[in-house]
Amino acid sequence: MRAEWINPFVTSTQDVFTTMLSFELIRGPLSVKKDPQPELEISGVIGLTGRAAGVVVVSLSRGVALHAAETMLGSRHEEVDADVIDAVGELANMIAGGAKRQLEELDMSVSLPSVICGTNHRVQFPSHTTPIAIPFEAESGPICISVGLSEVTK
Amino acid sequence: MRAEWINPFVTSTQDVFTTMLSFELIRGPLSVKKDPQPELEISGVIGLTGRAAGVVVVSLSRGVALHAAETMLGSRHEEVDADVIDAVGELANMIAGGAKRQLEELDMSVSLPSVICGTNHRVQFPSHTTPIAIPFEAESGPICISVGLSEVTK
Repeated sequence: MRAEWINPFVTSTQDVFTTMLSFELIRGPLSVKKDPQPELEISGVIGLTGRAAGVVVVSLSRGVALHAAETMLGSRHEEVDADVIDAVGELANMIAGGAKRQLEELDMSVSLPSVICGTNHRVQFPSHTTPIAIPFEAESGPICISVGLSEVTK
Repeated sequence: MRAEWINPFVTSTQDVFTTMLSFELIRGPLSVKKDPQPELEISGVIGLTGRAAGVVVVSLSRGVALHAAETMLGSRHEEVDADVIDAVGELANMIAGGAKRQLEELDMSVSLPSVICGTNHRVQFPSHTTPIAIPFEAESGPICISVGLSEVTK
């Protein structure tokens, strides 16, 4: 994954959480995602296609997922129900969409999101992609964005 | 999800496992995937974009994943290591690619796959998609394909 492709995902995540949801985010250090580490409890996964193909994973603690859903939906949810799942999918969609717009030259489209739930699930990328993990801390808990993008050779 | 979009995923799964891997598959009854059910232990997830956007999940028991990887890689793996993850991602890629070719009118592209591991993980789709689950039984264990596809309105 090219270094210049990372920043659009960082700024897009900050835009979505800070500008749209009014969360305060503190960003941690980027790292190459190597050995399989468990994700946070709820992960929105979305595919990208175009001149580069990839995957974005937006992994949230349960606290962050419920807080984000409450802010987006305007109603409190105690459980990770279908509305919360839709909200997490929409977050992944907005983050991927924002990065896509900044990476105009790659002419990418986003797939539908899927949302993975379960303590200790791991999301792994094809071994040729060198995925990057970008951790954030919000007031309601941790967030981690992982991105793997690979040039498409025709 | 339109009914005529389902069969290409059924035949593509059968092609990949039966023709390419020489597995004998028995297909179970299709169902609409509603309440979140745990997936099998290893799920390949791949996004589709085009005139329809979607997600395909290829969920395998550990036994099927190891058996498929052994057949594809020509070497035995006792653990779900990076090679097995790549093999499961490639299976998802081939199944989505085969269905895509049969659904030519939707002009779809496939994203990179990601592979989810973990007992009791669940993969959920956006609530507007009516995803379909297609179960199969192979000699080495169960396989379940889930597909959610939604028309893209420009």
